[in-house]
Amino acid sequence: MSIYEELLERFGKEKVSINETILEHHSKDESYFDPVLPDIVFFPASKEDVQSLLTYANDKRIPVVPFGVGSSLEGHAIPIHKGISVDFSQMNHIIELRPEDLIVKAQPGITRLQLNQELNKHGLFFPVDPGADATIGGMTATNASGTQAVRYGVMKDQILDLEVVLADGRILHTGSLAKKSSSGYHLNSLFAGSEGTLGLFTEITLKLHGIPESIMAARACFSSVKQCVEAAVSILRAGIPIARMELVDARSIAQVNHYSDTAFKETPSLFLEFHGNEAGNHADAEFVQALCEEQDCQEFIFEKDSLKRAQLWKARHDLSYAFRHSDPKKKTIGTDVCVPISKLPEMVEYARARIDYHELDGAVLGHIGDGNFHTLTLFNPEIKEQVTKTHLLNEEIVEFALSLGGSCTGEHGVGIGKMKYQQQEHGESLSLMTSIKNMLDPNYILNPGKLLPMETNK
Amino acid sequence: MSIYEELLERFGKEKVSINETILEHHSKDESYFDPVLPDIVFFPASKEDVQSLLTYANDKRIPVVPFGVGSSLEGHAIPIHKGISVDFSQMNHIIELRPEDLIVKAQPGITRLQLNQELNKHGLFFPVDPGADATIGGMTATNASGTQAVRYGVMKDQILDLEVVLADGRILHTGSLAKKSSSGYHLNSLFAGSEGTLGLFTEITLKLHGIPESIMAARACFSSVKQCVEAAVSILRAGIPIARMELVDARSIAQVNHYSDTAFKETPSLFLEFHGNEAGNHADAEFVQALCEEQDCQEFIFEKDSLKRAQLWKARHDLSYAFRHSDPKKKTIGTDVCVPISKLPEMVEYARARIDYHELDGAVLGHIGDGNFHTLTLFNPEIKEQVTKTHLLNEEIVEFALSLGGSCTGEHGVGIGKMKYQQQEHGESLSLMTSIKNMLDPNYILNPGKLLPMETNK
Repeated sequence: MSIYEELLERFGKEKVSINETILEHHSKDESYFDPVLPDIVFFPASKEDVQSLLTYANDKRIPVVPFGVGSSLEGHAIPIHKGISVDFSQMNHIIELRPEDLIVKAQPGITRLQLNQELNKHGLFFPVDPGADATIGGMTATNASGTQAVRYGVMKDQILDLEVVLADGRILHTGSLAKKSSSGYHLNSLFAGSEGTLGLFTEITLKLHGIPESIMAARACFSSVKQCVEAAVSILRAGIPIARMELVDARSIAQVNHYSDTAFKETPSLFLEFHGNEAGNHADAEFVQALCEEQDCQEFIFEKDSLKRAQLWKARHDLSYAFRHSDPKKKTIGTDVCVPISKLPEMVEYARARIDYHELDGAVLGHIGDGNFHTLTLFNPEIKEQVTKTHLLNEEIVEFALSLGGSCTGEHGVGIGKMKYQQQEHGESLSLMTSIKNMLDPNYILNPGKLLPMETNK
Repeated sequence: MSIYEELLERFGKEKVSINETILEHHSKDESYFDPVLPDIVFFPASKEDVQSLLTYANDKRIPVVPFGVGSSLEGHAIPIHKGISVDFSQMNHIIELRPEDLIVKAQPGITRLQLNQELNKHGLFFPVDPGADATIGGMTATNASGTQAVRYGVMKDQILDLEVVLADGRILHTGSLAKKSSSGYHLNSLFAGSEGTLGLFTEITLKLHGIPESIMAARACFSSVKQCVEAAVSILRAGIPIARMELVDARSIAQVNHYSDTAFKETPSLFLEFHGNEAGNHADAEFVQALCEEQDCQEFIFEKDSLKRAQLWKARHDLSYAFRHSDPKKKTIGTDVCVPISKLPEMVEYARARIDYHELDGAVLGHIGDGNFHTLTLFNPEIKEQVTKTHLLNEEIVEFALSLGGSCTGEHGVGIGKMKYQQQEHGESLSLMTSIKNMLDPNYILNPGKLLPMETNK
C-alpha cells in the first residue's frame, strides 16, 4: 500500500487529501520562498489523530510540517522536504474558558480574532497581535508578538501550558494552571518558538487580560525617523507603561493612506496607545506629549473616539498587506531585527541609509518600544539586480543588529531564511539546541530544514 | 595528591578552603534539612575559574554545589553528596550597567539589595524581591519571585541572557541583549530555575524598570481570610495593574507587631501597593477600596508617607524571620503552592482548616495576586508528633494544590523537599527533564540529589 492508502485506511477520507488545490494551498505561506507541494495533507480532529500520525510518520521517516493559516513570513509552513502537511483547521475550538482565572485552554487551530471575539464577551482579551489573523498554534510555534508586546509581553510570556505530541507519539504537558512555578525545568518556552521542529501542539493554555477601563490612542508627527526613535526611547526610560508604540515612516504613511483610505499626515510618526484608568491615561499622555515635543514633534493628535482608534490600528495592521498587494508584479521582503533600545536610533538610521544606498523602494516601521522594527522592501522578482540588492540589504541589516548585541528575528522566527545567522547569533548554544533537537526528533521528521542549520539526511 | 592539594595547586590558597568554620557555613541553608559538610569550599573569581573547576570535577566525578548566601528554603545549597561547594561571593560585581537600555549585566554573587542600591542612583530598580537578601545567582537558579511578581513577573521573566558553564566546561550564552527574540530555541527559561543542576551561571543580564513617578501603599483589614482572598480575586479580574497584593493573616500580623514593633490591627489583611502616576494611582486605589468594601472590609488605611510605606514592606519581608527567630527551640517549615486564582478561597480555607485540625501553630500569608501563598508552621523538632503532623500538613496542602491544577512550588524551588511531587506534577514531562539532565550532566556532578528524583549513582 502507498502512504496515502495507509493513511486513508487509518483515518478515513475526511482527514486525508491529495487534492491538487489543497496540496497547492499547503505549499506556501506569506514569505517570498518558492512553494513546494506536500505529498499529502492531513486534517486531524483530535490529539489522538496527531499522536497516531506522528507514530506512523516517525516509523516511516516521513517529514511532518504543521500548518495554521499559512501566514508565516519565513517559510515555516512550506514542506521543503515534501511529506505530510498537518492542517489544524479542524482543531479550532476553545476547550475551556475560565474568566474567573483569566485563563483559556484552546486548540491550536483557533485564530486570534476568533479567540478574541469569544473573550470580549467576558470583558477579557488576548494581547498578542501579529498583523495577520494567525492561528494561536502558529503564533506559539513562532513566538509571535506584535504591537502590544511592549506592555503585555510576547507569545511565550502568555503560555501557562502546552500539550505537545512528540515525534515518537508521547504526549506531555509543559506547564500547569499555576501562574507561577519553580517546579522542574521550565519547558513552556523551550517549545514556544520551536517552529514545529520539537513537537506538535494539541492544546494551548493562555493567560488572559481584563479589557482596560480606558483606552486612549494618539499620533505624534515628527520631521525625521530619528526624532521618532529618540522620543520612543525617552518614553520608555521614563517608565511610562505604554501599551503600544509603533514607528511608521513617511513612506509607510503614504501606503496606509492609499490602501486604507485614511488621510494621515505623511511624516514619520509614532502611533501610541495608553491602557489604564482615565485619569492615569490622561496624565501619561500629557507626559508623553511633552517628551515628544522635546523632539520637535510637529503635531500630537489624540484619536479619542473608538472608531478613529480602531481605524488607526487597522491601518497599522494592514500595512504589510498594503505593501504586498500594491503591485502584482512586485514581492515584499522584510527584516524584523531587535536591538537594545539605546541602539535603535543608529540601527534605524543605518537601515534607512542602506535602503537609499541600494536605491530600493523600502519602508521602515515597527514595534520600536521593544527595540524591534521592520524594513519592508518592494522588489520585482524578475529584475535580478533588485533581488540581489534586496537580499544584500537584509543581510547588512541583520549583521548590524547582531553587532549591536541584538537578534536576527524579534518575532517572525527563523524558518528557512534566518538559519544562516544561527551560528553567529547563538555560538556554542547552537550545539545545545542541536542536541535537544536530536534527542526529541532523532529521525528528523519534524519540520525538517527549518530553524536549525542541520544536515537533512542524517 | 588529594583533591584538596590538586585544587590548591590549580587555584591557590585564596580560592580553596577546608577551614572547618567555612565548611560549616556551607553545610546548610535556611531550610529545615540537616546540614552536610562539603569536602572543600571553592571561591571562584572569574568564569575561567568556574570553567577550570568544572572540567576538573567532571573528570573526577566530584559533586559540585553552587552557593550564594545560603538563603534557600529547600536545601538547594546543602551538599548532600559532599564534594565541592562553589561560593560566588567573590563574583559579586556589576559588569555593565546600561541605564539607557534598562539593562544590567552582573555576576551571580551580587545580592538584590546591593544591586538595587546601584540601580536606584539611576532612577531604576530590579523588582524581584524574595524576603531574604539573596544573590541574583541564587534567585535565578530557583526562579525566585516575591511581592512584586504580580506586576513585574518572576525571575525568569527578567532574564535577557545567562552565561552558563556546563558540566564539561563549555561556556554558552542563553540569550542576547534584545528584549524580544524568535531566534533558535529559548534557553533562558530552561536554565532559570534549574537549581544548579544543568550548569553554573557566571554572568546574568537582566531587564530593569524605571522607578515609578508615584508609589502608594495601603492596608485593608477584613474579618476573615476568605474575604481577603475574595477581594484579591475581584481586584485582579477588574484588570487593575496592582504592584503588590499580599495576604497577611491575623496570626502573622501578631508576629509582625511583636518582631517589627508595629501596631497593625491584628485582623486578616491585604497589604497593597500601586505604581504609576499620581492621578492613576488615586483612581486605582479608590476602585480597590470599593472592591474591598464589597467584601466587608473594616478599614482601608493609606500608608501615604514613604517612611510608613517602607515600614510596611520591611515588616512583610521580615515576617518569615520573625517566625523563625521567635523561639530558639522551634523550627519553621513552609509551603509555597500556587493555584489558579479562582481556587484560592477554597485552597486557603483548606490550608487553614488543616493547620487547625492538626492543632499546629501556623500562619497563612503570601503573594495571593499570583495565586501563590505560604503556610508557615512553627514546630519543635524534638517533639516527634509535631514533626510528623507538620510534614503531613505540607503533603496535604501540596496534594490539594496539585488536584486544583496548581504547582507544588510557586517560588522556593524543588530542592530536596519537593522531589517527591515531581512525577505527580509533571507526568510524562519528567522523563524529558531527566533526558535533558542526562544530556547536559552525564556524570551527575551538578548539585546531585536536587530537583530531579534520579538515582544518584548511575
